Amino acid sequence: MNDGSQYAPTAAFVDELVRAGLKEVCFAPGSRSTPLALLFAEHPGVRLFSHIDERSAGFFALGAAKAARRPVAVLCTSGTAAANFLPSVVEAYFGQVPLIVLTADRPPEARGIGSPQTIDQLKIFGDHVKWYAEVPVPENTPELIAHARALARQAFALAAGGPPGPVHLNFPFREPLLPQEAPFSAAQESQGLPPKEQDCELPSVVPGQVQPSLASFRPIAKLLERARRGLIVCGPQDDPDAADAIVRLAARLGFPILADPLSQVRCGTHTKELVIDAYDAFLRVEEFAAAQAPEVVLRFGAPPTSKPLNQYLARHPSATILFDPYHWRDPFHLASSVVRADAATASEALLKLLDETSVSGEAAGCEWTRLWLSANARTRSVIDETLAAMDGLFEGEVFVHLAELLPPGATLFVGNSMPVRDLDTFFPALDRPLRFMANRGANGIDGVVSSALGASAVLEAPLALVVGDLSFLHDLGGLLAAQRHRLTATIILINNDGGGIFSFLPQAGRPKHFEELFGTPVGLDFRHAARLFGLSFTAAADWNEFRAQVKESLARPGVDIIEVKSDRRTNVEQHRAVWQAVSRAVRDLV
Amino acid sequence: MNDGSQYAPTAAFVDELVRAGLKEVCFAPGSRSTPLALLFAEHPGVRLFSHIDERSAGFFALGAAKAARRPVAVLCTSGTAAANFLPSVVEAYFGQVPLIVLTADRPPEARGIGSPQTIDQLKIFGDHVKWYAEVPVPENTPELIAHARALARQAFALAAGGPPGPVHLNFPFREPLLPQEAPFSAAQESQGLPPKEQDCELPSVVPGQVQPSLASFRPIAKLLERARRGLIVCGPQDDPDAADAIVRLAARLGFPILADPLSQVRCGTHTKELVIDAYDAFLRVEEFAAAQAPEVVLRFGAPPTSKPLNQYLARHPSATILFDPYHWRDPFHLASSVVRADAATASEALLKLLDETSVSGEAAGCEWTRLWLSANARTRSVIDETLAAMDGLFEGEVFVHLAELLPPGATLFVGNSMPVRDLDTFFPALDRPLRFMANRGANGIDGVVSSALGASAVLEAPLALVVGDLSFLHDLGGLLAAQRHRLTATIILINNDGGGIFSFLPQAGRPKHFEELFGTPVGLDFRHAARLFGLSFTAAADWNEFRAQVKESLARPGVDIIEVKSDRRTNVEQHRAVWQAVSRAVRDLV
Repeated sequence: MNDGSQYAPTAAFVDELVRAGLKEVCFAPGSRSTPLALLFAEHPGVRLFSHIDERSAGFFALGAAKAARRPVAVLCTSGTAAANFLPSVVEAYFGQVPLIVLTADRPPEARGIGSPQTIDQLKIFGDHVKWYAEVPVPENTPELIAHARALARQAFALAAGGPPGPVHLNFPFREPLLPQEAPFSAAQESQGLPPKEQDCELPSVVPGQVQPSLASFRPIAKLLERARRGLIVCGPQDDPDAADAIVRLAARLGFPILADPLSQVRCGTHTKELVIDAYDAFLRVEEFAAAQAPEVVLRFGAPPTSKPLNQYLARHPSATILFDPYHWRDPFHLASSVVRADAATASEALLKLLDETSVSGEAAGCEWTRLWLSANARTRSVIDETLAAMDGLFEGEVFVHLAELLPPGATLFVGNSMPVRDLDTFFPALDRPLRFMANRGANGIDGVVSSALGASAVLEAPLALVVGDLSFLHDLGGLLAAQRHRLTATIILINNDGGGIFSFLPQAGRPKHFEELFGTPVGLDFRHAARLFGLSFTAAADWNEFRAQVKESLARPGVDIIEVKSDRRTNVEQHRAVWQAVSRAVRDLV
Repeated sequence: MNDGSQYAPTAAFVDELVRAGLKEVCFAPGSRSTPLALLFAEHPGVRLFSHIDERSAGFFALGAAKAARRPVAVLCTSGTAAANFLPSVVEAYFGQVPLIVLTADRPPEARGIGSPQTIDQLKIFGDHVKWYAEVPVPENTPELIAHARALARQAFALAAGGPPGPVHLNFPFREPLLPQEAPFSAAQESQGLPPKEQDCELPSVVPGQVQPSLASFRPIAKLLERARRGLIVCGPQDDPDAADAIVRLAARLGFPILADPLSQVRCGTHTKELVIDAYDAFLRVEEFAAAQAPEVVLRFGAPPTSKPLNQYLARHPSATILFDPYHWRDPFHLASSVVRADAATASEALLKLLDETSVSGEAAGCEWTRLWLSANARTRSVIDETLAAMDGLFEGEVFVHLAELLPPGATLFVGNSMPVRDLDTFFPALDRPLRFMANRGANGIDGVVSSALGASAVLEAPLALVVGDLSFLHDLGGLLAAQRHRLTATIILINNDGGGIFSFLPQAGRPKHFEELFGTPVGLDFRHAARLFGLSFTAAADWNEFRAQVKESLARPGVDIIEVKSDRRTNVEQHRAVWQAVSRAVRDLV
């Protein structure tokens, strides 16, 4: 049957994805993907985001899925279209982002014989997806319809949890490519699909998560009872329930919490008495870092962004317990014990076990903790003083101003390379609930604009993105989504005309080839990029202008670009000036 | 040893690649790739092209390698950077383009443990590369130096031929990442590298190609002796020696040659008496296509672009001989015999065997051939008349004007989707030597700007690119290379604000979702894109302006963008008007 009814399984797949909880589909136009595209368009339960570039579509979907904390689908036609998804799929895999990747393909008999737009899409994303399924060519049979519904549920469940990540389904379609119109009404019943009324009220899929038994935390609780010099290190993680549990555990133990902004522990309504936010600056102070040896380190989330923190942890052998339910993220081989639990579960379990004993935060490690807190307080005030005395715009100071300007509930998305590092160094702990996002799965500078815009598409509160010029340029076409989908975001473009991070690396010692290979200045006036995509563009001449521009942008709809110009050499000197000031303030503390 | 001398094998690899014939390296900045980047920069024999976006770098390298018909290398750092190469690698694989893909990686001990910018790069391009090598972590030992030289030669030889295609070498590097400076002088000897003087004069690698024996062509020659109604179909291929051999074979047999522009047979100094250039238009005429049944079809190159031609070939069972040395490119299963030979070799072999017999083109199939030639002549003149009578700009007519304007030796690069089809329909056979290029491996609309600019970087004569607006937008960042590498090209941007090809497809019959899913208008003023990248931009109001703008651009250095605005609906009507006129002229010919 070629009347379109052969796409009944495809319609069932679409319907079942939506019933499982899918709400957004990102796609790029193509012919082979017509059945899925039209069926998604016909489905009342799903919102479509059209893109031109599949790479941007993939990252947009990734940002939306991260922000919404649930699977988002991304769809493309056959050929290199699918290949363009790879960067976002890789990021989703390592960043644990639930992505349902749907690629249309020629049917098996059209492959390997020179058919146009036909490549080898079978397992094209290799080991960078959690699950791959080769979908049968659709035929209107009860078996294939039931199978399609099973595939959709599995795809959703596997993407959603254990850990979240990308799944890939490859859909071979034969011409003709037009499915029956409006298949999601009475037509369902006649096609043998179970009508919705017969279903019970339960969700069609409930994703799960591995967790150890409560008893298996007992040895850790025992160790913690005795520990006097302990630290809690919170790396990037996105569970909104983690912060509260972690700070209660810290209070019970009296341990300082070194909180990467991306851990969601640095800012929020939870108590922050023990939260250390300036470690990246003061752990560079040799006198302090050398003297402060921890006995026990509890590590939650991915490895922290801060290099001084990682080096500090590596130099002091200690009982290090790494809580990570799925991945094995211990690049410096510091974990004495790896516990397959997430932060919230582990913290609650430990609190429960510690309640059974007599340990109390007041008794444990008071002096140790006081020293961390005073180093932190000194550092924060010295940073403030140094920035106040600084002339002109300094990249790091962007985050100090944003800390004052972002309203409660706002999201701050940061690009990789310098912005994520400056965020860590300069963004203070706040009682305001803020969410921090970055693509820290593979730390690429690609797809950042699209990811942030994708996040803004599903978030209610304001979103600001801080991104460097090379990263901005890498995903230039991603700006197309801004007007196309009537998005609202504030893009702060830190333009130091090239790769700022290299000036901090040993490569800077090779001046002969430095600018050609590493500095790579592009000399572009990004005002024209804003005009191309119909966005407002302002360049901040000083912090007053910057603050006014950010404030205005955060208060109104639409995507604005606010440029902060910087010089790569000056930027290194300014960072070093801050670190020297911090060193003078902290080194005699010990 | 961490003084940089550990990179002696890396230096040897770079040196050996250059000795094998490598002349260009495209790269994007990164830290992990520092050893290779610095060593390439130090080598006097290689030209570096820096890019920001690895996807653009990959396609730029692909274009350069296609144009130069020899391997070009492309280099990136670890992480998603490598993933961004996939689209160009896929195109290189199916398009048989010699690409040497070099990815820097973390060393094995840093993988799978949460190290930053560390993904699974082993065989990341799957089966879309001809060869993959995991390079050892460099150490300064004679064994590793010799091995590195062997790797480089193999990489070059495998990329260069049999068929040409992409190879991938993954380079794990440990910190520190700085190699010794200036390793390509006296330093070589001291590192135990064989000094150049000891080498003989022979090239270090001689790529080969499979070919059948002369005797194995004998049955084909026998068949051809008897054939009266024969056709030679030339699909996309890039061997500059093929055209001359094919036209001599055709003359000997008296067979018409249906020559796709991308076959390089439609235009050139070779005789074109039997070249048919308007088949795409007149094979749409049912009366002609139904009546003209060939006995024998000789097929060279990839499947032709023209759908009417492919449909015509599929409707008439005939003895079809497909000459294709490597791939199996027969999507309609028409080949009676697949001969593993390239066009030039096969034609020469058949000519030799036919010389031994008495067959002569004068005798064979005269009427058959006359009919093809007169259908072709009528079609060409009807097309000219129809276009002359047409108001305003018509996408297809771009190619008629370019046929008059392109100087001898020029290259015409066309985008996929509509431009490659309009080229086929409207570009006439010419005695002027012109080269035609397109990314016809996977027919993607991605990377077209970068590929064309990469080609322009290694070609001496002028290059024009005809590209649609979606394809142009898909590779917007590719324009960065234009000023950065002081390139010269004429970009003709056919702007119909969306995906023009879909208006020709059955999807156009679903108006409800058509514009959202397929038409996808973007509504951009590309003048701003030109300004962003410092390029000139002119919009042609009529053909006089267009011709003046193209002429001027072809005569001067720099990259110019010339926009031809079009309307997608009108474009379909204009095409149909041409086909109707052709039908009226040709249908009574039979």
